Amino acid sequence: MWDAIWVDLSAATLAEPGGVGFVDEAAIAVEGEKIAWVGPASALPAAPHQLARTVHRCGGRLATPAFVDCHTHLIFGGDRALDFALRAEGASYAEIAAAGGGIRSTVAQTRGLSEEELVRAALPRARALLADGIATIEVKSGYGLDVGTELKMLRAAHRLGRELDVEVVPTLLALHALPPEFARDRAGWISTVIHELLPEVARKRLATAVDVFCENIAFTVAECGKVLQAARDHGLAVKVHADQLSAFGAAELAAEYGALSADHLEYTGDRGIAALAKSGSVAVLLPVAFVVIGETRKPPVEGLRAAGVPLAIATDCNPGTSPCTSLTLSMALARAEFGLTATEALRGATIEAARALGLEDSRGTLEVGRRADFCLWNLRHPREFGYWLGYSGLEATVRGGRVRSAEAR
Amino acid sequence: MWDAIWVDLSAATLAEPGGVGFVDEAAIAVEGEKIAWVGPASALPAAPHQLARTVHRCGGRLATPAFVDCHTHLIFGGDRALDFALRAEGASYAEIAAAGGGIRSTVAQTRGLSEEELVRAALPRARALLADGIATIEVKSGYGLDVGTELKMLRAAHRLGRELDVEVVPTLLALHALPPEFARDRAGWISTVIHELLPEVARKRLATAVDVFCENIAFTVAECGKVLQAARDHGLAVKVHADQLSAFGAAELAAEYGALSADHLEYTGDRGIAALAKSGSVAVLLPVAFVVIGETRKPPVEGLRAAGVPLAIATDCNPGTSPCTSLTLSMALARAEFGLTATEALRGATIEAARALGLEDSRGTLEVGRRADFCLWNLRHPREFGYWLGYSGLEATVRGGRVRSAEAR
Repeated sequence: MWDAIWVDLSAATLAEPGGVGFVDEAAIAVEGEKIAWVGPASALPAAPHQLARTVHRCGGRLATPAFVDCHTHLIFGGDRALDFALRAEGASYAEIAAAGGGIRSTVAQTRGLSEEELVRAALPRARALLADGIATIEVKSGYGLDVGTELKMLRAAHRLGRELDVEVVPTLLALHALPPEFARDRAGWISTVIHELLPEVARKRLATAVDVFCENIAFTVAECGKVLQAARDHGLAVKVHADQLSAFGAAELAAEYGALSADHLEYTGDRGIAALAKSGSVAVLLPVAFVVIGETRKPPVEGLRAAGVPLAIATDCNPGTSPCTSLTLSMALARAEFGLTATEALRGATIEAARALGLEDSRGTLEVGRRADFCLWNLRHPREFGYWLGYSGLEATVRGGRVRSAEAR
Repeated sequence: MWDAIWVDLSAATLAEPGGVGFVDEAAIAVEGEKIAWVGPASALPAAPHQLARTVHRCGGRLATPAFVDCHTHLIFGGDRALDFALRAEGASYAEIAAAGGGIRSTVAQTRGLSEEELVRAALPRARALLADGIATIEVKSGYGLDVGTELKMLRAAHRLGRELDVEVVPTLLALHALPPEFARDRAGWISTVIHELLPEVARKRLATAVDVFCENIAFTVAECGKVLQAARDHGLAVKVHADQLSAFGAAELAAEYGALSADHLEYTGDRGIAALAKSGSVAVLLPVAFVVIGETRKPPVEGLRAAGVPLAIATDCNPGTSPCTSLTLSMALARAEFGLTATEALRGATIEAARALGLEDSRGTLEVGRRADFCLWNLRHPREFGYWLGYSGLEATVRGGRVRSAEAR
């Protein structure tokens, strides 16, 4: 007998290549933390109450896999509302960064908070994320820019997951900005990352992947390549912030190192697309950052689509370019700004986002054996995802087989 | 002795021309449904517990007037997610409308629902709005396009307000689209509006204002002028959907009839700006619709600002061009897309939005004698409004002197 069964619902299982796998009259059964049965209710071998100890009747709600936010910088001190005021007066993102404002102010505030304080600061943001039906959140470090603070951020990310009883996937953002202490010694910081930070993160299993910001205002392809190689030598997966502000060859770099994902991609060209297609990396689109920084160049969605590169969508929650805690909003902007279809938006927040974290075998679809992470929505049809803005329709999230009512934003 | 006092908070009172009226250590006292005292806590005549029966200590939260959403089409049947899928394939808003899709499908579904069903359909959207700290919601009719359904929509709007115990301000959107029944008799519909619909709405006090959609795909300046004149003859205020898709002279029309507001304004030129400045009408900016329809022409914010036209921001919640239930998101997009300052964004959701409804003497500021509608936010500074996307920081709303905890989205 199963632990529980959910009936009287429709489902988008996502268990269909390129589609949403819609089942009109569906049932989902759970045993422990995993899905034990899913399919058309008419195919159930007996009446629901004969099959499971608990029967949840869902009043025609729509079920989907719980969402995965595969790119966030959720842990940070302070905010950058003042930068935004400056930008409204005409300063560019690059100018604010070059002037020593921007990320450096976040670094100073992040260094100044304890692990406990970092978790407290992130909790309201994380709760807001959960209110959109998220069960898995990637959280990057990268505002420490010294070994101790980077480790502190990763520990805070783990702790955030425990406090909320949600899956947090921590990523070491090893190269984000040059630490002020290394302003005249770029090679020194690269060496510190490779010889001190990375080994410690790997040894303590504080992260499963390593990310780098490969961009003209950040780190070169050569610098990033060294760190990605070191990450791979430690058995860690890799990701790349690629071609956000310029055509920098970063997508090609991501592909060369077999990255789980290349993220942003506004300036990626045909060679980058071809490389990503070959490497099987996921293209993670971050439309809120696109809107916030006033970018006009859009990522090459048609080219990526034609090449068969999987498309994921994430919030990029961060204080400088995407102070956003809503994945459904990101989905809506991916549709409105980048022309993604409703199907691509839903896949981009579920199975493709899971793939961007290397978790596509355990998350992102409703299939037997996958984690019982799913949502019930007050929506009529999957095409409503990315249609509403600011309205999620979330009724409840089931994480690891346990029902959570919709968490307040 | 006052009923209650809120202390240990900062406040943006908005009681300062052009500014936010920030008070660092503030107190707010309430008597009945109104504000009885507001100012620096140091100016209180005695200790809080000697002044009020209930003392609320707010842990340093930020208080603002509760928000006013001054332009919504919250009552409607169905959704238009299918239109959005069509638009993703290349159809324009005007093309969908010309093809008989678009608004006509919403009209058919709205006509098909009872008053009770319309309220049920709108409730989740309205609750989502409230989760952003809103205490006053304008709701337009306009999806009936026959006398009976227009009246039903207005009754549903009133009822929605009663069910949620929130102030709903109903507006008769008298000219929105030509009813299919009058496809070959434009003058017949104008006449029906003037001689049947408007008198009935005025007699039953179902709306306080009349709105018209003055646009090349909707109604001409001359047609709208006739209806606005009739509205004024009945003692009703007027509003205009103006220059959203083309330079149509609609802002000038709004000014000519002393409209409370002219809304959208993407294509308004210098003459329209000058006219609005002279008439004292509010410019209501609707950035979500701008983003959703992929508009590239931005409203003339600099010109409006220079001319001293008050700027308000609203969700424009509607199924066809702005399926949005978040005013804080609208504020963020007004900043990101239109270049509004943080101060303008906060004013645009409070005092200027109240002004767009003719309610600036009772709402939109924290001043003695105003309605005790205010919010407490987990934010450090007013400039965080329109900085976060998808995160409101709302802790509690006080409406009419009564505390409501943050309503779930």
